[in-house]
Parts: sequence; C-alpha cells; structure tokens
Amino acid sequence: MKKFAVVGAGAVGCYYGAKLAQSGRDVHFLMRSDLDAVRRKGLRIRSKDGDFHLRRVNAYGSTNEIGASDVVLIALKTTGNSALEKLIPPLLHEQTILVTLQNGLGNEEFLAERFGAQRVLGGLCFVCLNRIAHGVIEHYGHGTLSIGEFNRPPRARTREIVDAFCEAGIDAKLVRNLITERWRKLVWNIPFNGLGIAARANVAEVLADERLHKLARDLMRETIDAAGALGHRIPLSFIEKQIERSWPMGPYRSSSQIDFDEDRAVEVESIWGEPYRQAARAGMSVPRMETIYALIKGLTAKQQSG
Amino acid sequence: MKKFAVVGAGAVGCYYGAKLAQSGRDVHFLMRSDLDAVRRKGLRIRSKDGDFHLRRVNAYGSTNEIGASDVVLIALKTTGNSALEKLIPPLLHEQTILVTLQNGLGNEEFLAERFGAQRVLGGLCFVCLNRIAHGVIEHYGHGTLSIGEFNRPPRARTREIVDAFCEAGIDAKLVRNLITERWRKLVWNIPFNGLGIAARANVAEVLADERLHKLARDLMRETIDAAGALGHRIPLSFIEKQIERSWPMGPYRSSSQIDFDEDRAVEVESIWGEPYRQAARAGMSVPRMETIYALIKGLTAKQQSG
Repeated sequence: MKKFAVVGAGAVGCYYGAKLAQSGRDVHFLMRSDLDAVRRKGLRIRSKDGDFHLRRVNAYGSTNEIGASDVVLIALKTTGNSALEKLIPPLLHEQTILVTLQNGLGNEEFLAERFGAQRVLGGLCFVCLNRIAHGVIEHYGHGTLSIGEFNRPPRARTREIVDAFCEAGIDAKLVRNLITERWRKLVWNIPFNGLGIAARANVAEVLADERLHKLARDLMRETIDAAGALGHRIPLSFIEKQIERSWPMGPYRSSSQIDFDEDRAVEVESIWGEPYRQAARAGMSVPRMETIYALIKGLTAKQQSG
Repeated sequence: MKKFAVVGAGAVGCYYGAKLAQSGRDVHFLMRSDLDAVRRKGLRIRSKDGDFHLRRVNAYGSTNEIGASDVVLIALKTTGNSALEKLIPPLLHEQTILVTLQNGLGNEEFLAERFGAQRVLGGLCFVCLNRIAHGVIEHYGHGTLSIGEFNRPPRARTREIVDAFCEAGIDAKLVRNLITERWRKLVWNIPFNGLGIAARANVAEVLADERLHKLARDLMRETIDAAGALGHRIPLSFIEKQIERSWPMGPYRSSSQIDFDEDRAVEVESIWGEPYRQAARAGMSVPRMETIYALIKGLTAKQQSG
C-alpha cells in the first residue's frame, strides 16, 4: 500500500488525504475547482487538534495523470457517482482497492458491479468538516473512521488501511459488518437529514416539536425494522441513544439540509431512495420513509429545475 | 326563515350571502376589513354567470348590531373558530340554526358543543372564488352547495334552506350524511392541499411526479380506510375518480397552498389534524396522513413565528 489516490477532493477527501500525506504517505489528489489554488498554495487544515499546512500537494486534473494506485479513497458526493465510471479505470491495477467514504447505501454495490466486488471496501466518517475556501478545510471536531470490507470479514489489507489512518492521527477502527454500520448511521440520517429538508427544521427544532419528534422516532423504527429484514440487527434501544446524542447538537443543520438551503444537489438516492427500495424489495412496509423520500425527491427536483 | 346572518365575510360568505340578498332575502353581514368599502359601495360579484352589484348591503362591525337571526351562515376560516364563542351568542334565538360552510372536520362539533347540537347544520361548498378587492368577489366557476343536518337525517328546515339557496340561483342540494360528505371531500383535500404545502407541488405537478402521484393515492386510501372505520363508507373506486377529475385542473393551487405561499394562516387542524386524530382514536394506522400533518403543522408554525 504505497500509493494512495483521492477521488472527490471536497472537505472529506482533502481532510483524510492531507492527514495521510502529512504522515508521510504518497497521496495523489484528483481536484477540480481547487486545482490551481492547491498547486500554488497547498492544503491548509484548520483544526482544534492543531492547524497544519501541506505545502506540496500532488494535485491533478485527471486520474490519467495519477495512474495506477494501491488504494483509492472515494469521497465524491453520491449525486456524482456516474462520473466514477470514467474516473476510476486509470487508477486500477490488479490489486487496487477502492474505499468509498461516501454517504448512505448503494455506493459499495455501484463500485462492485463496475470494478469487481473483491476490490471494494467502505468507510463511515463521523467528522464535522467544512471547506471554507479553495484548499482550506475547517475541522470542527470528531474524526472517527469505521472501515470494513464489503460483505466479507476483515482481511489483512483491511487492518493495513486502518493502521495507515491511525498512523496519520485519525481515530480509525475496523468494522466487521460494514453495511450494518451504514444502516446504523441511517437511523439518524433518515429522520434528521430528512426533516431538515421536509420540515425545514434543524435538530433542536425536530426534538422540541412534539409531532416532528415522534415522526423522527417513527422513522428510526422503520429504518431499524427494514435493516432487520435485510439481516442487519439493530436493537430498538438504539432509538433512545440516537435521541439522547442529538440533544447536545442544538440547532445543528445536517449536511443535506445545508445542501438544500444552499441550492446544491442533495444525496437523495443514497440516503432515502436506496434504503426505501431495499426495504420494499424485502417486503417491508416503510410508509413514513417512503413519504419523506417522495417529498424530498420532489422538492429537490423542483429546486434543481428552478 | 326570514333573517339571515353571515359570519365571516370572505369570498365564500360574501358570494352566497350576496346571492341570497339579491333574491330578496333579508341578509345581514358581519364584516371587518371590508366594512367601510361595502357600506359605501356595496358588494360586487363578477361571474361568468353574470356580474351583479348589490348596492345596499346590511353590513355591520359586530354581531350585537345584527341581533337575533333565523339562519346563521358561518364562513369564517377555521383557524379563527375560537372567535365564534363571542360572535355567535348575540345572533341566537330559540330556533336559530347555524350552518357552517367551513372546511374539513370538527366545525359542526365545535358549534354543537357550545350552542347545542340541535341547531347545527353544515354545508360543503364546491366553488372557485377569490376576493380581489374590498367588497369585490370574483367567481370563477362551480357553486354547488351540499347541505345537511349534523348527525341527523334531513328535516323540513333542511329542505327550506336548500330551497332558499336554489331560489337564489345556487346549485344547492340536500345531503343525508353530512359527515360522510366531509370525508369524501377530504379524500381530495388531504393529499392535494397537503402536497401543495409539503412538496410545494400544484395539482399537475403531483399528478406528473411518479412518487408524489403514488403518495396522493396512498393518502386517499388511508383517508377512505379511516372514514370507513368511523362508519362512513366510501368505495375504493372513488380514488380513481378523484385522480381523473384532477387532471383537467392543470397547475391549480389549492386554497391551502395559496394561503401558505402568501404567508396566511393555513387550516391545518380541520384538514389534517382532526381527521388524523379521529382516525387514531378509531385505532386506525394512517402513517402517511400523520407524517403530512406533522410536516405541515411544523412548516406553518415556523412560518407564522418567523
């Protein structure tokens, strides 16, 4: 695992890539709008863990220039997944592994179908980041990265990747059931990102409103039931834990709510569409999830067309 | 039935009241913002059925000035129902009947609890109206008025009221099961007024969007099931009829959507809250109706507070 490529150099890609590079790894970034600025001025990470400045960054405008790599970190927004069909092939050799750090469901499957399931790993990021200018990332807190194989137990390579992140100062850990972890994350994202758009309510507003609060819990219950029907067991006590960890967030807006508020593409399919379709295929009735999905799909389509 | 009072002189109250007055009935209007203009210039109805101008209108600023009446037509927006507690008593003699022309559920019950069930009738208006200036009402079309007793079969007085409207040129008819008719109207209003707010989608947009179209039908089904559990049988074939009559409406915005778009109070409780609560009390699961109610309640509360 000598050469790392980062595809999708938004806040997540830049942050984890820069941390790896700073620890001495050979990291190559595919960049678009930030390319010139980063080539001239490098990457700056502002963080309560300590600011740092990566002066010399391997930044490119195409994956052809990067060429074959050992590990590809994919941090593209899921609304742009179709671009991966052309972006990934130049990065592949026989053993290249693809680690999707993207949100929601369906991303591992997307990569597996096109590039072979044996290559695919996934990571869940629990981190608060914001790109505040070209090449400048603000890190507000957290940083846990949970990494696992796609539908397989961990292997030696999984451990190796986790170790690489740990050596870079990231709180990385290995998970045995990656997709179960994705469903656990959705138990929070489906209601809170969803009501951020459908009810225009931040976390504190959802919790304080009697009906929205109940709706959030009911959506969590539907998500847990759907996960269970698909073989991912999550205890119902997880609902109360999610509510409790939400109170301290206060008027926090989810990334989806911010995307919507700022007229940017919302990751509708990976957060609501794919979970709904998987639940429906498993014969589960998830009427609230289906309703929220229909509303958000309609609202975002209207926004993007207007 | 000599003396009519109209409480709530918006478009509906002015239109039906003016038609009755024009046919020679003794009609007295409670007015607020239109009072001065109507006293000076009368009421103008612009209609494809023929414009007319009611020059001398009995318009008052309080129900004390109107005094005891035989028939009180109530066309107040349901969000203002609490005002009826003070507005109605001055209009009552022993035989006064109260006819609520308001939207949704719960209005007959509200009047019955306060002024006695024996007085209460209700009417459903199928009419397109708009108040375009002080004392000026535009009538776009339709006008059917379905009138019935509250939880009782029709009586002689019911027929008398229907006849009064018919003599005034209104397409009025008598209904045997008023509350069943209210549920039938809600089969359309719950989804289409609801998605007008929650999805910002007009009738044509709901019909054209695969997921919103399905959601509209699913909401109709929940409404019909809830009505059935409460003893109001509506055949499932009614769903297809509602969809078919909606296509010709095109980009029609429901009154609730217009209210919401223009920052006016939305009749949330009578259209979604009361049907949801009645369904829940009857032990019915109506998850989509509950979700839409929670979202609209949250969205409108946020709007009115902001």
